[in-house]
Amino acid sequence: MLAAARTAFAERGFDATSIRAVATAAGVDPALVHHYFGTKDKLFLAAIEAPADPEAFLPEVLAAGPEHLGENVVRMLLRVWDGPMRPAGLALVRSAVGNEWTARLLREFLVSQVLRRVLGTLDLPAAEGEARGALVASQLVGVVMTRYVLRVEPLASAPAEELVAAVGPTLQRYLTGDVALPGRRD
Amino acid sequence: MLAAARTAFAERGFDATSIRAVATAAGVDPALVHHYFGTKDKLFLAAIEAPADPEAFLPEVLAAGPEHLGENVVRMLLRVWDGPMRPAGLALVRSAVGNEWTARLLREFLVSQVLRRVLGTLDLPAAEGEARGALVASQLVGVVMTRYVLRVEPLASAPAEELVAAVGPTLQRYLTGDVALPGRRD
Repeated sequence: MLAAARTAFAERGFDATSIRAVATAAGVDPALVHHYFGTKDKLFLAAIEAPADPEAFLPEVLAAGPEHLGENVVRMLLRVWDGPMRPAGLALVRSAVGNEWTARLLREFLVSQVLRRVLGTLDLPAAEGEARGALVASQLVGVVMTRYVLRVEPLASAPAEELVAAVGPTLQRYLTGDVALPGRRD
Repeated sequence: MLAAARTAFAERGFDATSIRAVATAAGVDPALVHHYFGTKDKLFLAAIEAPADPEAFLPEVLAAGPEHLGENVVRMLLRVWDGPMRPAGLALVRSAVGNEWTARLLREFLVSQVLRRVLGTLDLPAAEGEARGALVASQLVGVVMTRYVLRVEPLASAPAEELVAAVGPTLQRYLTGDVALPGRRD
């Protein structure tokens, strides 16, 4: 079931994949997939062996309201990555960069499990939410890369709260500020 | 000579590596290294098989003055990555993420060949230049990762100038704006 799910999510993306299609591909009854994994979100997280379920920590990020969203998003990112999940996170990033399929799965994780939930609280038109979310991703992924992978100083050793103060305003602008938003080229 | 240079740059970093030390490690005369590579910068670029020499395109980035530096830095990044150098760039990023040594070399490349030259024009105290440069790196590396590796839409397909408009102000703030700068933890 998990192998079938991985293939489906990587090939078609999170949105276009149904529990029914995964069940058919795995040759089992959809009820069995529901029984083992509950929701499509949980099936996806199990399939990509996600080190953490964003649903568990995002409510705290969202609770302080839209005007604190920028700093709270980086703060949570750093709490997860400065903690015991770092090795699993690094393994996922390494795999995503080296492998087209894992890259797609990491992108689907970012978009469907993290960005959409964060942006969902702002009640924006879909295209605007997507563009703001992608800009947020560009800064968050960059913080992970420079602090944990490339280890560029002083970002590599600075206390988390100093990064929150420096990068939070960027994220806040991308989330709720005045930005010339990029659009897909058709 | 190139293997000895790679080892030295990865182990000790760009600054602490001399042409003399590379020559000694390779068992040749320093004059020979000078003859083949000219400067330490060129030796480094040859050692890491850099797809491009930043010295060739940075003057154009710097020419328009400090107040346009943010947009011009992203514009140049996108011109390089949207052009024929993308495969070599992707190969370098893939290798850096999977391999601690290549990660160090890519960091030394970013810091010594790109950020230091860009920040050098702003005439800042060393620690401030380092911190602003690292923040710039966090956004630039994030753009590369989201647009070219993870391919998060709309960043993956948006016209370059739309990205310049969205991300340029972030870089300008990191370069010359009001930022709570992070510092190394001792």
